[in-house]
Amino acid sequence: MGDLQQLAKRARAAAAKLGTLTTETKDAALLAMADGLERESSAVLAANTKDMEEARGQGVTGALLDRLSLTEGRVKEMADGLREVAALRDPVGEVVDGWRLPNGLQVEKVRVPLGVVGIIYEARPNVTVDAAGLCLKSGNAVVLRGSSSAINSNAALVKILSEAASTAGLPGGCVQLVEDTERETARELMKLHGLIDVLIPRGGEGLIRTVVENSTVPVIETGVGNCHLYVDESADEAMALDILVNAKTQRPGVCNAVETLLVHREVASSFLPEAAGALGEKGVQIRADAEARALMPGSLEAVEEDWRTEFLDLVIAVKVVAGIDEAIEHINEFGSGHSDAIVTDDYGRAGRFTAEVDSAAVYVNASTRFTDGGQFGMGAEIGISTQKLHARGPMSLPELTTVKFVIHGSGQIRP
Amino acid sequence: MGDLQQLAKRARAAAAKLGTLTTETKDAALLAMADGLERESSAVLAANTKDMEEARGQGVTGALLDRLSLTEGRVKEMADGLREVAALRDPVGEVVDGWRLPNGLQVEKVRVPLGVVGIIYEARPNVTVDAAGLCLKSGNAVVLRGSSSAINSNAALVKILSEAASTAGLPGGCVQLVEDTERETARELMKLHGLIDVLIPRGGEGLIRTVVENSTVPVIETGVGNCHLYVDESADEAMALDILVNAKTQRPGVCNAVETLLVHREVASSFLPEAAGALGEKGVQIRADAEARALMPGSLEAVEEDWRTEFLDLVIAVKVVAGIDEAIEHINEFGSGHSDAIVTDDYGRAGRFTAEVDSAAVYVNASTRFTDGGQFGMGAEIGISTQKLHARGPMSLPELTTVKFVIHGSGQIRP
Repeated sequence: MGDLQQLAKRARAAAAKLGTLTTETKDAALLAMADGLERESSAVLAANTKDMEEARGQGVTGALLDRLSLTEGRVKEMADGLREVAALRDPVGEVVDGWRLPNGLQVEKVRVPLGVVGIIYEARPNVTVDAAGLCLKSGNAVVLRGSSSAINSNAALVKILSEAASTAGLPGGCVQLVEDTERETARELMKLHGLIDVLIPRGGEGLIRTVVENSTVPVIETGVGNCHLYVDESADEAMALDILVNAKTQRPGVCNAVETLLVHREVASSFLPEAAGALGEKGVQIRADAEARALMPGSLEAVEEDWRTEFLDLVIAVKVVAGIDEAIEHINEFGSGHSDAIVTDDYGRAGRFTAEVDSAAVYVNASTRFTDGGQFGMGAEIGISTQKLHARGPMSLPELTTVKFVIHGSGQIRP
Repeated sequence: MGDLQQLAKRARAAAAKLGTLTTETKDAALLAMADGLERESSAVLAANTKDMEEARGQGVTGALLDRLSLTEGRVKEMADGLREVAALRDPVGEVVDGWRLPNGLQVEKVRVPLGVVGIIYEARPNVTVDAAGLCLKSGNAVVLRGSSSAINSNAALVKILSEAASTAGLPGGCVQLVEDTERETARELMKLHGLIDVLIPRGGEGLIRTVVENSTVPVIETGVGNCHLYVDESADEAMALDILVNAKTQRPGVCNAVETLLVHREVASSFLPEAAGALGEKGVQIRADAEARALMPGSLEAVEEDWRTEFLDLVIAVKVVAGIDEAIEHINEFGSGHSDAIVTDDYGRAGRFTAEVDSAAVYVNASTRFTDGGQFGMGAEIGISTQKLHARGPMSLPELTTVKFVIHGSGQIRP
């Protein structure tokens, strides 16, 4: 039996015990893990320095290097994140539905942990701690498979987390890191159907595609966000401008930022010059279709590929449309089903947009930047699902559970 | 573009329209489909005769041939099934959760159709009609891929269903059959990620495994049921005997029938001889471990494989266990996570069994044969999920939907 299979079997054994622990025990462990991280932050930072040196040696710079970097402050943030998770409501044991059958059988649908959750993710070491906290709180064992560039940081973090968890009474094997970062090992992990209950990839489009194409374990797809803002003919243009600038520039590198602006022809001549000015001030590059270009000084010509692209940067694609039909059609064809918004004062069109745009989150008169477990008041999030099965939109603790039917009888048999 | 891709794109276009139809329109279409089946039953029966002749020519007999066979009565049952689905509550539009954020944003989580549902199934032609009815009622387009042995029956059924649906105002392409029954085509269907939203295989273990291993479309696994009955030391033995006979023999060929009996050592000497007699009367073959064999006249020796086998027949495996720990361990190791029951009068052990057995349905003092959408009062079912993601246990209309976040604002932007 391979090392990875043994690791997964340890996780399964741990999961069987985790599912029956009280919330008090799990919360105490999360707090102990938080304290452990702060107490041993120097070990974490030393491991991170190694990763940073290797990355620099390989010519990594800029945002990528920044995502890998840990500081005393970032370790503190991770610890505080665990404390926040401890304060959230435990989803396990919630009776989500229940009824009595005519024959007297009492049927209940009860929330239980998924079992073993696998996370495959890219450079950010904070995912290690966030994912471990959310999985344990919801009663799941977690198998973490980070990237080779963060291997020293991740190993140091998991060592601290699993020691603290053990000391606090959680079963051994509840948090494990796959230390072999060969590509082959990740593929082997994706084939552990029956040992791992769900795989959640967190990272870029390439990673997510690889997992979807190779996994026999059920997958929850997360994150790719090609989001749209449609400015309707009846829009309050000042509101539309505020929302546009916020959704594009408040934090352009994230999945819920807007990537394409669609504007109704009737308001294009008044709105687009204003938009060009406001976006220009923020340093946004504009890639527009012919009609919009004529109204947006300094804009470039958009090509078909721009409609499909999640820029994750200060770049926006702009298109003039004939009306809400064309807007909805464009979004459903080119979007990624993440978050899309309309600005309108028209009752009927607001209703059509929310009904017909096939995305996880649809907004009327608000910025797409709110699609986030924390912003929605759901607590910390493990990711944002852009698929339709199991969970859609921000996923927090309840999305890390399944249900079980519990049936109490007094000897009923089927006639 | 391949034929299959074109078919899937037609389904997607139909799904976009189906999602916005009223319940009245969908129900009228279901009733029209039911009437159509009855009116044109002779065409269905003629097509079925062709399938039956070919099957007989290939040497098919017995239960397999019976599953393929249609009669006037069976066509009527299919039509009545559609009428029952029309009478069920429409899940689309249900607001499953909602709240107001501190900034005034109104967040709602609303049930919407999955989109395009693919069903890959074996010989029974009634699945064609059942699946079409449930998918349309829940606002989904459906792509059906039955087996080659039922191709004439399925084609006749789908022709009637889709004509009736069109006439009643449903979009063309809402019910389609993949008429090419080559194995390669099924595999191509499993790769239509982005066009098909979910695949549900219905059939034997081999079919389900093939779909899980080859699909990039999310899959809901259904059906394999290696179910257990554990008779605890505190059991009411008369009740245990009734439940055993019911769960094993009332209909042995289905997934919620019991396949393994576990008996506490303390009651083995009184219970097992009675069980041997009662099962013997029903013609059940007993495969027992050494300890049970000594107490069950006429029983055969069980081998390891018997613990893993879904017999789907008048065969049962029997094992004596030391107590509830060994029973739970056995079930979680060898079971398929479908339905398992304990017979006990002990409060603590009833609680441990329901908490620790990791199955879709866990019973105290009742037959496992109740795991069924109809029996549970959920209405017709599309299958019984034995996986943990999205749905677990019997799946009816709500399980054929997903949710969407709808957010109404008045200009909110993220600070």
